[in-house]
Amino acid sequence: MMQLTSARMETMLGNDYSEQTCSVASALEVVGERWSLLIVRDIFLGVRRFEALQKDLGIARNVLQTRLTRLVEHGVLEKRLYKVRPPRYQYALTEKGLDLWPTIVALLQWGDKHAATPAGPPVVLEHRGCGGAIDEHRICARCSERLGPRDALAKAGPGAGPRSPLRERPAPRVARAA
Amino acid sequence: MMQLTSARMETMLGNDYSEQTCSVASALEVVGERWSLLIVRDIFLGVRRFEALQKDLGIARNVLQTRLTRLVEHGVLEKRLYKVRPPRYQYALTEKGLDLWPTIVALLQWGDKHAATPAGPPVVLEHRGCGGAIDEHRICARCSERLGPRDALAKAGPGAGPRSPLRERPAPRVARAA
Repeated sequence: MMQLTSARMETMLGNDYSEQTCSVASALEVVGERWSLLIVRDIFLGVRRFEALQKDLGIARNVLQTRLTRLVEHGVLEKRLYKVRPPRYQYALTEKGLDLWPTIVALLQWGDKHAATPAGPPVVLEHRGCGGAIDEHRICARCSERLGPRDALAKAGPGAGPRSPLRERPAPRVARAA
Repeated sequence: MMQLTSARMETMLGNDYSEQTCSVASALEVVGERWSLLIVRDIFLGVRRFEALQKDLGIARNVLQTRLTRLVEHGVLEKRLYKVRPPRYQYALTEKGLDLWPTIVALLQWGDKHAATPAGPPVVLEHRGCGGAIDEHRICARCSERLGPRDALAKAGPGAGPRSPLRERPAPRVARAA
Protein backbone atom coordinates (compact mmCIF):
# COMPACT_ATOMS: atom_id res chain seq x y z
CA MET A 1 0.00 0.00 0.00
CA MET A 2 2.75 2.34 1.03
CA GLN A 3 4.76 1.27 -1.99
CA LEU A 4 1.88 2.04 -4.33
CA THR A 5 1.47 5.52 -2.89
CA SER A 6 5.18 6.13 -3.08
CA ALA A 7 5.37 4.90 -6.68
CA ARG A 8 2.47 7.13 -7.63
CA MET A 9 4.15 10.13 -6.07
CA GLU A 10 7.37 9.47 -7.89
CA THR A 11 5.47 9.35 -11.17
CA MET A 12 3.62 12.51 -10.35
CA LEU A 13 6.61 14.44 -9.16
CA GLY A 14 9.34 13.09 -11.40
CA ASN A 15 11.52 12.82 -8.35
CA ASP A 16 15.24 12.52 -8.98
CA TYR A 17 15.92 10.66 -5.75
CA SER A 18 13.64 7.74 -6.58
CA GLU A 19 16.52 5.39 -7.39
CA GLN A 20 17.79 5.79 -3.84
CA THR A 21 16.79 3.14 -1.32
CA CYS A 22 17.45 5.26 1.72
CA SER A 23 15.37 6.95 4.36
CA VAL A 24 17.40 10.15 4.10
CA ALA A 25 16.57 10.27 0.39
CA SER A 26 12.93 9.45 1.12
CA ALA A 27 12.79 12.27 3.64
CA LEU A 28 14.38 14.69 1.18
CA GLU A 29 11.81 13.70 -1.44
CA VAL A 30 9.22 15.26 0.81
CA VAL A 31 11.04 18.14 2.48
CA GLY A 32 14.24 18.57 0.47
CA GLU A 33 12.75 20.91 -2.07
CA ARG A 34 13.84 24.51 -1.89
CA TRP A 35 11.80 26.43 0.72
CA SER A 36 9.97 23.40 2.12
CA LEU A 37 11.98 23.21 5.35
CA LEU A 38 11.82 26.99 5.76
CA ILE A 39 8.04 26.83 5.49
CA VAL A 40 8.00 24.08 8.12
CA ARG A 41 10.30 26.17 10.31
CA ASP A 42 7.99 29.19 9.99
CA ILE A 43 4.98 27.14 11.01
CA PHE A 44 6.91 25.84 14.03
CA LEU A 45 7.54 29.50 14.89
CA GLY A 46 3.83 30.29 14.67
CA VAL A 47 3.71 31.86 11.20
CA ARG A 48 0.71 30.01 9.82
CA ARG A 49 -1.18 32.08 7.31
CA PHE A 50 -0.44 32.35 3.63
CA GLU A 51 0.04 36.13 3.71
CA ALA A 52 2.29 35.99 6.76
CA LEU A 53 4.37 33.18 5.27
CA GLN A 54 4.67 35.04 2.00
CA LYS A 55 5.79 38.20 3.81
CA ASP A 56 8.26 36.38 6.02
CA LEU A 57 9.81 34.21 3.31
CA GLY A 58 9.68 36.84 0.56
CA ILE A 59 9.06 34.26 -2.16
CA ALA A 60 6.72 34.30 -5.13
CA ARG A 61 3.12 33.50 -4.23
CA ASN A 62 2.86 30.70 -6.78
CA VAL A 63 6.02 29.02 -5.46
CA LEU A 64 4.72 29.26 -1.90
CA GLN A 65 1.33 27.87 -2.95
CA THR A 66 2.95 24.94 -4.76
CA ARG A 67 5.10 24.09 -1.77
CA LEU A 68 2.22 24.36 0.70
CA THR A 69 -0.02 22.19 -1.47
CA ARG A 70 2.71 19.59 -1.74
CA LEU A 71 3.35 19.58 2.02
CA VAL A 72 -0.41 19.12 2.58
CA GLU A 73 -0.52 16.27 0.02
CA HIS A 74 2.33 14.58 1.85
CA GLY A 75 0.55 14.91 5.17
CA VAL A 76 3.17 17.22 6.69
CA LEU A 77 0.77 20.18 6.96
CA GLU A 78 -2.95 20.51 7.12
CA LYS A 79 -5.10 23.43 6.12
CA ARG A 80 -7.49 24.57 8.83
CA LEU A 81 -10.42 26.92 8.60
CA TYR A 82 -9.95 29.56 11.29
CA LYS A 83 -12.64 32.02 10.20
CA VAL A 84 -15.91 31.17 8.50
CA ARG A 85 -17.04 34.50 6.97
CA PRO A 86 -15.14 35.12 4.85
CA PRO A 87 -13.49 31.68 4.90
CA ARG A 88 -9.90 32.00 6.04
CA TYR A 89 -7.37 29.23 6.40
CA GLN A 90 -4.13 28.66 8.19
CA TYR A 91 -1.61 25.87 8.00
CA ALA A 92 -0.77 23.61 10.89
CA LEU A 93 1.73 20.83 11.36
CA THR A 94 0.34 17.30 11.51
CA GLU A 95 2.02 14.72 13.74
CA LYS A 96 4.17 13.82 10.74
CA GLY A 97 5.10 17.50 10.44
CA LEU A 98 5.83 17.82 14.16
CA ASP A 99 8.19 14.87 13.76
CA LEU A 100 10.37 17.17 11.63
CA TRP A 101 11.28 19.07 14.78
CA PRO A 102 14.56 17.15 15.33
CA THR A 103 15.59 17.98 11.76
CA ILE A 104 14.78 21.68 12.20
CA VAL A 105 16.60 21.79 15.54
CA ALA A 106 19.63 20.02 14.05
CA LEU A 107 19.82 22.51 11.17
CA LEU A 108 19.30 25.42 13.57
CA GLN A 109 22.10 24.29 15.85
CA TRP A 110 24.43 23.61 12.94
CA GLY A 111 23.69 27.05 11.51
CA ASP A 112 24.22 28.67 14.92
CA LYS A 113 27.59 26.98 15.21
CA HIS A 114 28.89 27.21 11.67
CA ALA A 115 27.08 30.03 9.93
CA ALA A 116 26.52 32.35 12.85
CA THR A 117 26.18 36.08 12.45
CA PRO A 118 28.42 38.24 14.65
CA ALA A 119 25.30 39.29 16.57
CA GLY A 120 24.66 35.75 17.78
CA PRO A 121 21.85 33.27 17.21
CA PRO A 122 18.66 34.70 15.69
CA VAL A 123 16.48 32.16 17.50
CA VAL A 124 17.02 30.69 20.94
CA LEU A 125 15.17 27.58 22.06
CA GLU A 126 14.37 26.93 25.68
CA HIS A 127 12.48 24.37 27.71
CA ARG A 128 8.99 25.74 28.14
CA GLY A 129 8.15 26.43 31.74
CA CYS A 130 11.64 25.48 32.91
CA GLY A 131 13.72 27.99 30.98
CA GLY A 132 16.66 25.63 30.49
CA ALA A 133 18.58 25.65 27.22
CA ILE A 134 17.95 22.85 24.73
CA ASP A 135 21.16 20.98 24.11
CA GLU A 136 22.23 19.22 20.95
CA HIS A 137 20.50 16.01 22.00
CA ARG A 138 17.26 17.96 22.54
CA ILE A 139 17.59 17.48 26.26
CA CYS A 140 17.04 20.30 28.74
CA ALA A 141 20.40 21.49 30.04
CA ARG A 142 18.75 22.46 33.33
CA CYS A 143 16.38 19.62 34.23
CA SER A 144 17.64 16.86 31.88
CA GLU A 145 14.19 16.18 30.45
CA ARG A 146 14.06 14.77 26.92
CA LEU A 147 12.22 17.39 24.91
CA GLY A 148 9.79 17.24 22.05
CA PRO A 149 8.32 20.02 19.91
CA ARG A 150 5.55 20.74 22.43
CA ASP A 151 8.11 21.38 25.18
CA ALA A 152 10.06 24.04 23.33
CA LEU A 153 9.74 27.79 23.41
CA ALA A 154 11.35 29.73 20.57
CA LYS A 155 12.52 33.25 21.46
CA ALA A 156 14.14 35.97 19.41
CA GLY A 157 17.86 35.69 20.06
CA PRO A 158 20.49 38.46 20.01
CA GLY A 159 20.93 38.05 16.26
CA ALA A 160 17.23 38.28 15.37
CA GLY A 161 16.57 40.65 12.50
CA PRO A 162 14.02 43.47 12.68
CA ARG A 163 11.65 41.39 10.54
CA SER A 164 11.85 38.31 12.75
CA PRO A 165 8.38 36.86 13.31
CA LEU A 166 9.44 36.33 16.92
CA ARG A 167 9.78 40.09 17.40
CA GLU A 168 6.28 40.89 16.25
CA ARG A 169 4.48 39.20 19.07
CA PRO A 170 5.25 37.58 22.38
CA ALA A 171 7.38 34.47 21.93
CA PRO A 172 5.01 31.74 20.75
CA ARG A 173 5.31 28.18 21.84
CA VAL A 174 6.87 26.13 19.13
CA ALA A 175 4.02 23.75 19.90
CA ARG A 176 1.34 26.28 18.95
CA ALA A 177 1.98 25.18 15.42
CA ALA A 178 0.43 21.82 16.21
CA MET B 1 34.77 39.24 9.08
CA MET B 2 32.20 36.49 9.04
CA GLN B 3 29.70 38.95 7.65
CA LEU B 4 32.02 39.89 4.80
CA THR B 5 32.55 36.28 3.86
CA SER B 6 28.87 35.62 4.01
CA ALA B 7 28.06 38.66 1.86
CA ARG B 8 30.64 37.56 -0.69
CA MET B 9 29.14 34.10 -0.86
CA GLU B 10 25.68 35.46 -1.38
CA THR B 11 26.92 37.55 -4.27
CA MET B 12 28.78 34.63 -5.76
CA LEU B 13 26.00 32.14 -5.36
CA GLY B 14 22.96 34.31 -5.91
CA ASN B 15 21.43 32.66 -2.93
CA ASP B 16 17.69 32.96 -2.57
CA TYR B 17 17.75 32.58 1.19
CA SER B 18 20.00 35.59 1.79
CA GLU B 19 17.15 37.76 3.08
CA GLN B 20 16.55 35.30 5.88
CA THR B 21 18.13 36.03 9.26
CA CYS B 22 17.87 32.51 10.55
CA SER B 23 20.28 29.71 11.30
CA VAL B 24 18.06 27.16 9.57
CA ALA B 25 18.23 29.26 6.41
CA SER B 26 21.99 29.72 6.84
CA ALA B 27 22.39 25.97 7.16
CA LEU B 28 20.26 25.33 4.08
CA GLU B 29 22.38 27.82 2.11
CA VAL B 30 25.24 25.39 2.54
CA VAL B 31 23.56 21.98 2.51
CA GLY B 32 20.05 22.62 1.20
CA GLU B 33 20.92 22.29 -2.43
CA ARG B 34 19.70 19.20 -4.21
CA TRP B 35 22.04 16.24 -3.59
CA SER B 36 24.26 17.99 -1.04
CA LEU B 37 22.87 16.15 1.98
CA LEU B 38 22.87 12.85 0.09
CA ILE B 39 26.55 13.36 -0.70
CA VAL B 40 27.21 14.06 2.98
CA ARG B 41 25.21 10.95 3.90
CA ASP B 42 27.26 8.84 1.49
CA ILE B 43 30.51 10.06 2.97
CA PHE B 44 29.22 9.24 6.46
CA LEU B 45 28.55 5.72 5.10
CA GLY B 46 32.11 5.45 3.82
CA VAL B 47 31.54 6.19 0.13
CA ARG B 48 34.33 8.69 -0.42
CA ARG B 49 35.67 8.57 -3.94
CA PHE B 50 34.26 10.46 -6.89
CA GLU B 51 33.60 7.32 -8.94
CA ALA B 52 31.93 5.53 -6.05
CA LEU B 53 29.79 8.57 -5.23
CA GLN B 54 28.81 8.94 -8.85
CA LYS B 55 27.87 5.27 -9.06
CA ASP B 56 25.91 5.30 -5.81
CA LEU B 57 24.04 8.55 -6.44
CA GLY B 58 23.56 8.05 -10.17
CA ILE B 59 23.81 11.75 -10.93
CA ALA B 60 25.59 13.59 -13.71
CA ARG B 61 29.32 13.92 -13.16
CA ASN B 62 29.29 17.68 -13.60
CA VAL B 63 26.51 18.09 -11.01
CA LEU B 64 28.40 15.89 -8.55
CA GLN B 65 31.62 17.83 -9.17
CA THR B 66 29.88 21.17 -8.62
CA ARG B 67 28.32 19.99 -5.36
CA LEU B 68 31.58 18.50 -4.08
CA THR B 69 33.50 21.66 -4.92
CA ARG B 70 30.93 23.76 -3.14
CA LEU B 71 30.97 21.54 -0.04
CA VAL B 72 34.79 21.80 0.01
CA GLU B 73 34.60 25.60 -0.37
CA HIS B 74 32.22 25.75 2.56
CA GLY B 75 34.54 23.63 4.68
CA VAL B 76 32.09 20.73 5.01
CA LEU B 77 34.33 18.32 3.08
CA GLU B 78 38.00 18.16 2.35
CA LYS B 79 39.78 16.51 -0.52
CA ARG B 80 42.54 14.14 0.54
CA LEU B 81 45.23 12.51 -1.54
CA TYR B 82 45.11 8.78 -0.85
CA LYS B 83 47.41 7.59 -3.61
CA VAL B 84 50.39 9.43 -5.03
CA ARG B 85 51.03 7.72 -8.38
CA PRO B 86 48.79 8.37 -10.09
CA PRO B 87 47.36 11.01 -7.75
CA ARG B 88 43.98 9.89 -6.43
CA TYR B 89 41.72 11.76 -4.07
CA GLN B 90 38.90 10.99 -1.75
CA TYR B 91 36.54 13.22 0.16
CA ALA B 92 36.34 13.33 3.93
CA LEU B 93 34.12 15.17 6.35
CA THR B 94 35.72 18.00 8.28
CA GLU B 95 34.59 18.70 11.86
CA LYS B 96 32.02 21.06 10.37
CA GLY B 97 30.84 18.22 8.16
CA LEU B 98 30.76 15.73 11.05
CA ASP B 99 28.53 18.22 12.86
CA LEU B 100 25.88 17.47 10.22
CA TRP B 101 25.43 14.04 11.76
CA PRO B 102 22.42 15.09 13.88
CA THR B 103 20.73 16.45 10.74
CA ILE B 104 21.39 13.24 8.80
CA VAL B 105 20.17 11.09 11.70
CA ALA B 106 17.03 13.23 12.10
CA LEU B 107 16.21 12.89 8.38
CA LEU B 108 16.98 9.16 8.49
CA GLN B 109 14.69 8.57 11.46
CA TRP B 110 11.92 10.69 9.95
CA GLY B 111 12.21 8.79 6.69
CA ASP B 112 12.20 5.44 8.54
CA LYS B 113 9.03 6.45 10.34
CA HIS B 114 7.13 8.26 7.63
CA ALA B 115 8.43 7.09 4.29
CA ALA B 116 9.35 3.54 5.14
CA THR B 117 9.38 0.77 2.61
CA PRO B 118 7.46 -2.41 3.50
CA ALA B 119 10.81 -4.20 3.84
CA GLY B 120 11.86 -1.99 6.76
CA PRO B 121 14.66 0.53 7.24
CA PRO B 122 17.45 0.42 4.65
CA VAL B 123 20.04 1.56 7.19
CA VAL B 124 20.20 0.72 10.87
CA LEU B 125 22.41 2.67 13.25
CA GLU B 126 23.86 1.14 16.36
CA HIS B 127 26.23 2.11 19.11
CA ARG B 128 29.66 0.96 18.05
CA GLY B 129 31.08 -1.67 20.35
CA CYS B 130 27.91 -1.76 22.45
CA GLY B 131 25.39 -2.78 19.80
CA GLY B 132 22.54 -0.74 21.32
CA ALA B 133 20.08 1.03 19.06
CA ILE B 134 20.43 4.79 18.61
CA ASP B 135 17.26 6.48 19.78
CA GLU B 136 15.76 9.70 18.47
CA HIS B 137 17.84 11.79 20.88
CA ARG B 138 20.97 10.08 19.60
CA ILE B 139 21.34 8.26 22.90
CA CYS B 140 22.16 4.57 23.13
CA ALA B 141 19.01 2.65 24.03
CA ARG B 142 21.16 0.02 25.79
CA CYS B 143 23.81 1.95 27.74
CA SER B 144 22.32 5.48 27.72
CA GLU B 145 25.50 7.08 26.38
CA ARG B 146 25.09 10.26 24.37
CA LEU B 147 26.39 9.43 20.93
CA GLY B 148 28.29 11.35 18.31
CA PRO B 149 29.19 10.44 14.74
CA ARG B 150 32.30 8.53 15.82
CA ASP B 151 30.24 6.28 18.09
CA ALA B 152 27.86 5.09 15.43
CA LEU B 153 27.96 2.03 13.24
CA ALA B 154 25.77 2.01 10.13
CA LYS B 155 24.59 -1.40 8.99
CA ALA B 156 22.49 -2.51 6.06
CA GLY B 157 18.94 -2.86 7.40
CA PRO B 158 16.20 -5.25 6.22
CA GLY B 159 15.13 -2.74 3.55
CA ALA B 160 18.60 -2.19 2.05
CA GLY B 161 18.58 -2.41 -1.73
CA PRO B 162 20.96 -4.64 -3.69
CA ARG B 163 23.04 -1.57 -4.57
CA SER B 164 23.41 -0.37 -0.98
CA PRO B 165 27.02 0.65 -0.31
CA LEU B 166 26.64 -1.09 3.05
CA ARG B 167 26.15 -4.43 1.30
CA GLU B 168 29.34 -4.21 -0.68
CA ARG B 169 31.67 -4.45 2.24
CA PRO B 170 31.56 -5.11 5.97
CA ALA B 171 29.59 -2.43 7.78
CA PRO B 172 31.87 0.61 7.96
CA ARG B 173 32.03 2.86 10.96
CA VAL B 174 30.11 6.01 10.31
CA ALA B 175 33.18 7.66 11.76
CA ARG B 176 35.45 6.36 9.02
CA ALA B 177 34.28 9.29 7.03
CA ALA B 178 36.22 11.60 9.34
